[in-house]
Amino acid sequence: MSTTALFKHIQAQKSYLCVGLDIDLDKVPQHLLKAEDPIFEFAKAIIDATAPYAVAFKPNLAFFETYGVSGWQALEKTIRYIKTNYPKHFAIADAKRGDIGNTATRYAKAFFEQMNFDAVTIAPYMGRDAVEPFLAFDGKYGILLALTSNPGAADFQKKTLDGKPLFTKVLATASSWDNAHNLMYVVGATQAEALHQIRAIVPNAFLLVPGVGAQGGDLNHVFAQGHNAQCGLLVNASRSIIYAGSDEQFASAAAQQAVQLQQQMEVHLTENNLL
Amino acid sequence: MSTTALFKHIQAQKSYLCVGLDIDLDKVPQHLLKAEDPIFEFAKAIIDATAPYAVAFKPNLAFFETYGVSGWQALEKTIRYIKTNYPKHFAIADAKRGDIGNTATRYAKAFFEQMNFDAVTIAPYMGRDAVEPFLAFDGKYGILLALTSNPGAADFQKKTLDGKPLFTKVLATASSWDNAHNLMYVVGATQAEALHQIRAIVPNAFLLVPGVGAQGGDLNHVFAQGHNAQCGLLVNASRSIIYAGSDEQFASAAAQQAVQLQQQMEVHLTENNLL
Repeated sequence: MSTTALFKHIQAQKSYLCVGLDIDLDKVPQHLLKAEDPIFEFAKAIIDATAPYAVAFKPNLAFFETYGVSGWQALEKTIRYIKTNYPKHFAIADAKRGDIGNTATRYAKAFFEQMNFDAVTIAPYMGRDAVEPFLAFDGKYGILLALTSNPGAADFQKKTLDGKPLFTKVLATASSWDNAHNLMYVVGATQAEALHQIRAIVPNAFLLVPGVGAQGGDLNHVFAQGHNAQCGLLVNASRSIIYAGSDEQFASAAAQQAVQLQQQMEVHLTENNLL
Repeated sequence: MSTTALFKHIQAQKSYLCVGLDIDLDKVPQHLLKAEDPIFEFAKAIIDATAPYAVAFKPNLAFFETYGVSGWQALEKTIRYIKTNYPKHFAIADAKRGDIGNTATRYAKAFFEQMNFDAVTIAPYMGRDAVEPFLAFDGKYGILLALTSNPGAADFQKKTLDGKPLFTKVLATASSWDNAHNLMYVVGATQAEALHQIRAIVPNAFLLVPGVGAQGGDLNHVFAQGHNAQCGLLVNASRSIIYAGSDEQFASAAAQQAVQLQQQMEVHLTENNLL
């Protein structure tokens, strides 16, 4: 998918919402546990309920891997379900992989070819040759961790490296790598004060912004500081949407949370002449 | 497994060799491709052939994930085979995971509980709350990327952060985290000049050292600069061992490469009164 197509989809949906699928069997409605594949049943219901208000889905790999082979089967069914039923929705494998050359290529093939994800989140610590292999696939994206939403972002990302915060060094350095047009960046919504600084370094890239909702980031602030001429934002909410309800009405409860975010987003897009 | 037990195993085996299982179906002997599960067949043969000369095995997750569900099945069979037949060998999931709190806990459970790995490699970029969840399991280890063997290590790891190289900041900071006694560190063999500096910061931790063999690191130099009173080193070789042969004799070719490294290691351990 091109970023032009992604922006058109944002315009059509009047939304830049990404729904995070962090599916925890301890939290899904009890009645689903009787299903043959409760992870997939839950995913399918959430996807169908929220798809009208979203432009992207983001399965979190940890929550699938923790169930071993059956979790991986649920993941493959989930990505197939998304791409069959909502082919214009952008599918992100939140995997935070990062390894060198030939190993990175294997991860890229797992997510882009073996499954049909549009993007995978990746970690920058190992540098150029751990990232470029993910960028060699046309219409596929590596979403590089830049400034994350958690307290641990202060341990290294915000520390001063060669006179500037490490996360700005990551953004500036990665921008010079081969196929950098296939890069997007993770910037936590709780870090909105840094968005202006980030946009100065990567004006055109899409930013994946987690941390709205359960983690407390402010959507208005994120949009004001972070958008660009193609919107340039995918704002993710996971727990606040998918666990909004805990009974048989969980899917409509999720839809209600999603539509609230979508309505705020529609205002942002309208006010800034992006529709 | 305690590090005391690991050191005893090193003494019993007269070796600190870790065999990396980066299993690429394009490189395994052709006759294995007829097997029902060629990845596992190859893994099993390499494990049996090299176990007498090694103390650890390190499946590289990317090479399993790239085959989807069948790859994950092969991974589960491989770890089960190691732990059933060689229970004293240290099993490392080379997964380079890294994510926040509840997600990190899921990854830890996937590798430590769903499978029975002794350790998993993890990335430091997201800081404390992305690492500590891996350290909360008794007798299990998080192996944190510090200074890797690839050229990209120069992009960020060796850059100056608050007056010191980032990798030394990672080592010093991580040492202060909860359950830091369950931390080990990745230091590439191609970075042997930094081992002295690293030992000054983490004198007691085990170091996982890839990069000997195909990547050109020097084993004598690594041992001289990197060992401690418990040996403190797991030196990994992958391709130089597992692809030593390409015909039906591939397992004995692998054993020959392993025994050569083991013999060098026995000399190191003997000369330094560690046996």
